[in-house]
Amino acid sequence: MESVVVGTMNHEYKATSTITIKGILSLLVESVGENKDESKSVISLGMGDPTLSTFFPNTKVAEEAVADALHSGNFHGYAPTAGLLQARNAIAKYLSNELPYELSSDDVFITCGCTQAIDVSVALLARPGANILLPRPGFPIYELCAAFRQVEVRHYDLLPEKGWEVDLDAIEALADQNTVALVIINPGNPCGNVYTYHHLEKIAKTAKRLGTIVIADEVYGHLAFGDNPFVPMGVFGSIVPVLTLGSLSKRWIVPGWRLGWFVTNDPSGTFRKPKVVERIKKYFDLLGGPATFIQAAVPRIITQTEEVFFRKTIDNLRHTADICCQEIEDIPCISSPCKPQGSMAMMVELNLSLLEDISDDIDFCFKLAKEESVIILPGTAVGLKDWIRITFAADPSALREGMQRIKSFYQRHATKQ
Amino acid sequence: MESVVVGTMNHEYKATSTITIKGILSLLVESVGENKDESKSVISLGMGDPTLSTFFPNTKVAEEAVADALHSGNFHGYAPTAGLLQARNAIAKYLSNELPYELSSDDVFITCGCTQAIDVSVALLARPGANILLPRPGFPIYELCAAFRQVEVRHYDLLPEKGWEVDLDAIEALADQNTVALVIINPGNPCGNVYTYHHLEKIAKTAKRLGTIVIADEVYGHLAFGDNPFVPMGVFGSIVPVLTLGSLSKRWIVPGWRLGWFVTNDPSGTFRKPKVVERIKKYFDLLGGPATFIQAAVPRIITQTEEVFFRKTIDNLRHTADICCQEIEDIPCISSPCKPQGSMAMMVELNLSLLEDISDDIDFCFKLAKEESVIILPGTAVGLKDWIRITFAADPSALREGMQRIKSFYQRHATKQ
Repeated sequence: MESVVVGTMNHEYKATSTITIKGILSLLVESVGENKDESKSVISLGMGDPTLSTFFPNTKVAEEAVADALHSGNFHGYAPTAGLLQARNAIAKYLSNELPYELSSDDVFITCGCTQAIDVSVALLARPGANILLPRPGFPIYELCAAFRQVEVRHYDLLPEKGWEVDLDAIEALADQNTVALVIINPGNPCGNVYTYHHLEKIAKTAKRLGTIVIADEVYGHLAFGDNPFVPMGVFGSIVPVLTLGSLSKRWIVPGWRLGWFVTNDPSGTFRKPKVVERIKKYFDLLGGPATFIQAAVPRIITQTEEVFFRKTIDNLRHTADICCQEIEDIPCISSPCKPQGSMAMMVELNLSLLEDISDDIDFCFKLAKEESVIILPGTAVGLKDWIRITFAADPSALREGMQRIKSFYQRHATKQ
Repeated sequence: MESVVVGTMNHEYKATSTITIKGILSLLVESVGENKDESKSVISLGMGDPTLSTFFPNTKVAEEAVADALHSGNFHGYAPTAGLLQARNAIAKYLSNELPYELSSDDVFITCGCTQAIDVSVALLARPGANILLPRPGFPIYELCAAFRQVEVRHYDLLPEKGWEVDLDAIEALADQNTVALVIINPGNPCGNVYTYHHLEKIAKTAKRLGTIVIADEVYGHLAFGDNPFVPMGVFGSIVPVLTLGSLSKRWIVPGWRLGWFVTNDPSGTFRKPKVVERIKKYFDLLGGPATFIQAAVPRIITQTEEVFFRKTIDNLRHTADICCQEIEDIPCISSPCKPQGSMAMMVELNLSLLEDISDDIDFCFKLAKEESVIILPGTAVGLKDWIRITFAADPSALREGMQRIKSFYQRHATKQ
C-alpha cells in the first residue's frame, strides 16, 4: 500500500530538477541559526517581499476598501469563478489606460496572485510534446509549473551586456512547431530590466513569425524608476496574442492579499473563440480564487489610490537601488553589468578569482549567511551560476549595513596577492 | 496562428462531457428572464450558498478576527505556500478533537476553499492510466478535475433505499490496480446523507482491501441534524490512508472567504515519506493560496466561535429540511426516498408518468423556471437523470412559497386521469 501511494504521488515529477527560491532561502536562514553571532541581526536581501520593510508601506485606501467590503456583509458568498464582475471591469479599465485598444471584463480572469496566473497559463497551454521558452535567469515557478503540467522547458538567455534584453537569435533557434509560448518578465525579476517599446515590438514580431504567443509577466508593472518607461506587452496584442499576468502584490505592496489577474490581450479575437473561452472558464471552476470581499474592493483600490503613493514607492525603489549600486562599486568581488531600472531585484556577478576559499555562488551565500547573517539568493536558484540576486526593496539602513557586511566578508576571504 | 492557439487550448479536454452546476443554473436563471411574470420574485433553491439567505447569518466573531488581522499590518506579506503555521496548527487541533490520534501542522495544507483542495487531491494522484471512483449522484467539480488532470472516472452508485450509502459491491467490481482513490462526500452533497460509524468503517476496509486511498470530502462537516452524528473519515486513518478535504465555507457560512484545507490522515505515515511530502509542498508552491490575513484569523475563528452559533445553524437546517420534506409529501409527482440528515441539499425523484408534457428532469426544471420563477437543479447535473436537487439552505418563507409554486406547476401539468 505504501509503495502504491508513494509511487503514484511521485509519478512523472523530477523533484531534483526544481529548486524553489523559498526552499533555498529557508536553508540559508537555518544556516544563520547554526553559528549566530548574537550581536548581528539577520539582514534579508533574499526575498521580494517589501512588506518586511517599513520603508515600503502600503496605502490605507486599499486596506479600508477591503475592510468596508468585508463589513458590508454583501461579499461572504461565492464569486463567479472567473472573478467578480466589478473587479474584472476595474482591471480591464486599469490595463486599457495604457493600450491602443479597450479590454473588456471578458478578457480578465481573477487569480490568487500572479503565481496562480502563471500556473493557469502553463496548464492551459499544456499538451503532449509542448515546449515553452523561458528566460535565464528567470523565476523558478515557471519551471515548477512546467514540470507539473508536463511541458518541456527551453531556456533562452537574457543578455547582461544589453540591459538584460531577450536574446532574439536564441529564440529563433529554440522555437519549433511545438512551442506554445514565449515568456517574458518585464519589469524583470531577477534582473531589474525594463524593456523599451522598440525591444518589446521586436519580441512581438519574433513570436508572430514563430507562430507562438507571448506570456507577459508584469507582476512588477509600473515599478520602473530608470530611463525606460514601463510599456505593457499588451500594446503589441495586434501583432501577437499576449497573455498578461499581473497582481496588486507589488505595486500596492500587498503580496499577501493574493489578488492577481490573467488577461487575454488579443484584439484579433484568438482567445475569444467559444471553445477557448469555455476551456478557460472551466479551468477557473477548479481554482478556488481569491476571497470575494477582496475582489469587491478592487474597483476602489484601483481608482482611489493616490498618485503620490505610487510615486513615493518608485522614488524609494530608485533610492535603494542606487544605494545598492554604490555599495557594489566598493566591493571588488562583485559587479553589476548595468543599473537596475525597475522591479525590486538585480543580478550581480561574482568574481571568484578574487576570493580564496569560495567555490561558487551557493558556497558564497551559505558562508555569508553563516558568518555575516546576511541572506542573499544564489544565482543558481534563478538559473545563473556564480551570480547572486540582491533584493533592494529593503530599508536603506539595512541595505547599507548588509552591503558593508558583504564587504567585510570579501576582505576576510580575499585572495592573498 | 489562430488555429494553433485554439488547437492547443482544446487539447485533451472533452468540454461536452462536463456539465457544471453554475453553468446550468445560469441558463435556468436566463430562462426566467424570458417570460418573467413580474408578480413573481425569483426563488432559488438551486445553489448551495447559504449567504443568499438572511436565515443563515454568519458570526461576528469570525468577521472581527479577519478585520483585526487585516488592520494589524502584520499580514500583508506572503504566507508560506503550504499555509501560515498558526492556521495549520489550529486546523490540526480542530480536526484532532474528533480523532483517535493527533494530527500535526505538517498534515495540514491550506487551500482556496474546498474546491482547490479537490483539485489538489486529483492532480497529486494523477498518472497515465489512473482511475478514480466517484459517487453518483455526486459533485461535478470532481469530474471536471479528472478531465483536466487526465484521470479516468469510474462511477459507483449511492443507494437511495439505504440512505444513500455507498454501493460497496460496485466498488469492488470497479476498482483495479490503477485505482488511485475512492471519493466519498459526507455529509453528502447532493443527497443530504450522513454516514454511520459502521458504514464508514466498511468503506475504509473495502478501500484497504482494494489497495487504494480514500478522499473524504467533509466540506459539510458537522452539519448533521438527523439521527446519525457526523463521524470524520479520518477516524479510520489507521485502516486506510485518508485525505480529508474541508473548509470554513459551510459551517461558518462564509464560502466567499475561500479558506479550505487538504489534510493527510494517516498515522502509519504513508504521506510522510520525504518524497511525497516534497511533492505536495512543491505543488502548493504553484497555487497562490488564500490571503495571509484570512489565514491569520483562523485560530481565533476556530477557538472563539460560540457553540450556540453552530447549534443555531443546525437547528435552522433541520427546520428548513423538515419544511421541504413536508411540502414534498403534498406534491404527487415528486418523492424523496429518505429524509436528509445533513448538508444543505437533498435529492428528490420525479414521477414523470404523473406529468403530461414533461420529458425529463431538465425539461421539468426549465419549464418550472419559466412558468414559476423557481430555480432547482436538474439531477442530470449531478449524475442522476429524472431526479432534482433541492437546496434547503433558504429562508423558510421562500422555501414554502417555492414548494407551493412547484405544486401549482404540477397541477397544471398533471396527467389527465
